[in-house]
Amino acid sequence: MTLEDVQGRPDTRGIALDEAGVSDLRYPITLADRDGAKQESIGQFKMSVAVPAEAKGTHMSRFVEILHEHATDISVVTLPVILDAICQRLATEHAHLQIRATYFRERSAPVSHARSLVGYDAVWSATVNGASTQLELEVQVPVTSVCPCSKAISDYGAHNQRGHITIRARQAGSVSILWIEDLVDIAENSASAPVYPLLKRPDERYVTMQAYDNPVFVEDMVRNVATQLHDDPRVAAFYVHASNDESIHDHAAFASVTWPRTNAALDQFRWEQ
Amino acid sequence: MTLEDVQGRPDTRGIALDEAGVSDLRYPITLADRDGAKQESIGQFKMSVAVPAEAKGTHMSRFVEILHEHATDISVVTLPVILDAICQRLATEHAHLQIRATYFRERSAPVSHARSLVGYDAVWSATVNGASTQLELEVQVPVTSVCPCSKAISDYGAHNQRGHITIRARQAGSVSILWIEDLVDIAENSASAPVYPLLKRPDERYVTMQAYDNPVFVEDMVRNVATQLHDDPRVAAFYVHASNDESIHDHAAFASVTWPRTNAALDQFRWEQ
Amino acid sequence: MTLEDVQGRPDTRGIALDEAGVSDLRYPITLADRDGAKQESIGQFKMSVAVPAEAKGTHMSRFVEILHEHATDISVVTLPVILDAICQRLATEHAHLQIRATYFRERSAPVSHARSLVGYDAVWSATVNGASTQLELEVQVPVTSVCPCSKAISDYGAHNQRGHITIRARQAGSVSILWIEDLVDIAENSASAPVYPLLKRPDERYVTMQAYDNPVFVEDMVRNVATQLHDDPRVAAFYVHASNDESIHDHAAFASVTWPRTNAALDQFRWEQ
Amino acid sequence: MTLEDVQGRPDTRGIALDEAGVSDLRYPITLADRDGAKQESIGQFKMSVAVPAEAKGTHMSRFVEILHEHATDISVVTLPVILDAICQRLATEHAHLQIRATYFRERSAPVSHARSLVGYDAVWSATVNGASTQLELEVQVPVTSVCPCSKAISDYGAHNQRGHITIRARQAGSVSILWIEDLVDIAENSASAPVYPLLKRPDERYVTMQAYDNPVFVEDMVRNVATQLHDDPRVAAFYVHASNDESIHDHAAFASVTWPRTNAALDQFRWEQ
Repeated sequence: MTLEDVQGRPDTRGIALDEAGVSDLRYPITLADRDGAKQESIGQFKMSVAVPAEAKGTHMSRFVEILHEHATDISVVTLPVILDAICQRLATEHAHLQIRATYFRERSAPVSHARSLVGYDAVWSATVNGASTQLELEVQVPVTSVCPCSKAISDYGAHNQRGHITIRARQAGSVSILWIEDLVDIAENSASAPVYPLLKRPDERYVTMQAYDNPVFVEDMVRNVATQLHDDPRVAAFYVHASNDESIHDHAAFASVTWPRTNAALDQFRWEQ
Repeated sequence: MTLEDVQGRPDTRGIALDEAGVSDLRYPITLADRDGAKQESIGQFKMSVAVPAEAKGTHMSRFVEILHEHATDISVVTLPVILDAICQRLATEHAHLQIRATYFRERSAPVSHARSLVGYDAVWSATVNGASTQLELEVQVPVTSVCPCSKAISDYGAHNQRGHITIRARQAGSVSILWIEDLVDIAENSASAPVYPLLKRPDERYVTMQAYDNPVFVEDMVRNVATQLHDDPRVAAFYVHASNDESIHDHAAFASVTWPRTNAALDQFRWEQ
Repeated sequence: MTLEDVQGRPDTRGIALDEAGVSDLRYPITLADRDGAKQESIGQFKMSVAVPAEAKGTHMSRFVEILHEHATDISVVTLPVILDAICQRLATEHAHLQIRATYFRERSAPVSHARSLVGYDAVWSATVNGASTQLELEVQVPVTSVCPCSKAISDYGAHNQRGHITIRARQAGSVSILWIEDLVDIAENSASAPVYPLLKRPDERYVTMQAYDNPVFVEDMVRNVATQLHDDPRVAAFYVHASNDESIHDHAAFASVTWPRTNAALDQFRWEQ
Repeated sequence: MTLEDVQGRPDTRGIALDEAGVSDLRYPITLADRDGAKQESIGQFKMSVAVPAEAKGTHMSRFVEILHEHATDISVVTLPVILDAICQRLATEHAHLQIRATYFRERSAPVSHARSLVGYDAVWSATVNGASTQLELEVQVPVTSVCPCSKAISDYGAHNQRGHITIRARQAGSVSILWIEDLVDIAENSASAPVYPLLKRPDERYVTMQAYDNPVFVEDMVRNVATQLHDDPRVAAFYVHASNDESIHDHAAFASVTWPRTNAALDQFRWEQ
């Protein structure tokens, strides 16, 4: 029996679509890290192609086939390979791939040196538009922040809280690779202190005083990050967002900034997620 | 045309069901508060009946009809009325109703007395089993908590964070009514300090020092709440849970306790949500 | 005692911020609808101002003061008034306000005409940049979608599922007002059938066959919406996204398109949420 | 410098706590499956001990130390080993461990036999109370469900949707091991059809008609599961919940049942999550 290719029917409404594809698809993946090692994680995938005005739709099952073939080797280096497979299998020059996954790094406590693993929410994103391919990395980094105002106006103590610094950076074309680890390092040195899964009492004392000695507003965290990204030639454009889960409120304080190295760099920067 | 009542068909598997109904149904509601005033909110509803072994299913649309009729007057007083409507319309003596909604209270800042509104996640729950009707209230209260250990072992500062105290309390039968406001008051006086939507600088100074002067572990918050609930004759049973969004970690610390005034009180206490 | 204005200190890093403010702040609000009536809801607020390079930070508590004063009258008409209050109180010409809230409309079942209320997730967004003010509406509309491919290739049946159509539209300047209701109407007539909270058996029969008679892909839903928005002079730019919670998969299928009436209309269109 | 053990201080409120520990802690884990193979995943951990009335609190960092040592070998077999480590390190006989993780299985499409991986949300839970240790497994299985009423009363078509069957089962003591795979198999054969990540057109035709031929209510799915669990001697007690993301509504329909093989089996069955 021949089954009709319904998605392949012509369309007459005259509207080309930016994207059609699959989302919320989770798959086990193997991620390459900065040091050449591999780690296993679980990716949440969004994969799409543009649809020209005259085509009724795209062939969704092909995205899953491609994913199944490539999930065992995901990195900034291999994303263009997957994009290329999408373009060939779906006969297009406009495709997008986004992977959300938890990325772990080992951390050593500051005094006891007790070891544990910190997980970061990371996003790898790649877009091809004809001859141009863009790569973007995003990571959300939990941090400690002590409020400078509370410290300055109080006789003792200072409210502090867990904050989150989100960095989205577009890779500049012809330079060395930008890694999730690079962005995590920048975020953690921009707050009052990093967070740790495992702290013994001497570590807790150390971190408490370190944070109190380095109070920052959300505005400060964003600027501290932005200053470092400005100086990194691997970054073509960035978006930085910092928010605090304020301990004295039930809402958050936040700040953000967007910056392109050149006007051209911003043209196709994907703000939407 | 007569349409068959498919849910009314007999069932032969011999398995009675505890619950069948609708969930994740949101509806505008009017809530009565402790002071006799009303406030508008949006309820997320779960409504169910037991299904006897010989019936194939229940009639789901009737729950929505009943909700549409009763949404304009929701309180601890009217929940049994709604349960009664469910029992009559669905010809059962076993029904359950759960409403999740945000509940607001006005708050005055401690020094400036600036006014604002705090929203709490609350749950009203009612269950009828033949002659017995049980009412339960739950509320999650955001608070500030300062870590006693961090304060004791550090030369200055102390890590603190937003915490959440959750109280679920079963109303004792023949006494005066327990209100959401009663549970909120108990939770807020059990932490280092309450949270405020609006704090001017003198307020921020006040709250910073108030919290530093009252450090509590999650274990302390649970015990402070439990002590007060023990003493309240309106409470037949309770579950208290406190968690801290630790500012020095990316995980939470938590503690919890369950307590029935009599063994009988625990029999049908609904732990699942 | 005079408390130092720490946020008012100068900053020397030379980095202006796009936004600094509060987010995840919930407040009871009163919304004006298309018919001149009012409805109570609960808003989740994001309020921000730009921060010039030489200022250390903004004064977060003022956002809450302004919100407290204006929450009782929220509509497309009053958003510019709130923005104006933010600009005056925080001495800036660059401010942003975003409100997420559930918006209810009454719905009548197609055969029985039984009445019930449908809730939609809506977003009102307003931005001022000097002399220019932009208003945007967004709504997510749940719908029924039947798969045209499944229907065409199967002898009987067709997989169908709940889908969601999201429309974000920027209000054109000098024409009549665009309302949430307008966008909901467009989304619902672009799917296989609308969803209903309350359907009696004759209604369920009607809706089942209506949906089967009108199969649509996610691509079709986006194009059906886009065609109508093209023709509406009140729309300066739009983003349309449709996704299906596929009943035969555990992932979603989606499609999207962005469109500006003029190139200028896209300049400041806020893609990020 | 000696730092005081603040958690070790005595407490005088006279209230023993059911649990104190850590939650929302994510860690990379290695899971053993039914076939003796291993798979990498990411666990979300909750680990706790009871706190006697006279102790102020527990030592939270020790949970993270134990997790770091044991994360590379997680299975129904090793859970008691981890519990034992908790009991020894924290000097207690009452401990609880809960792990949430995505669990993948390979699936073959029904006609094309194309292979892909399905991810399931699973929970492993273990509790020790003195001499007694209880193990529980939970899994949420996405499925396709076709409505029997809609099919019966309509001339053509039938509304269908993605549903979720959740099974929580307590392992009976002295019999062979119950695995996640066993519960997934039971859930999938209790619905109209399983879901697949990858379906080619002939597969889609097959699944569409398979589901239409096997319509089920949520009540049916719960009973189909319960019947099989009754017959499995490895199951000491169970909770089954089925819900449908109704395609014609924006709310869910659900049903549930709880069942103990003996009254004793229910005593400590943990309903709360």
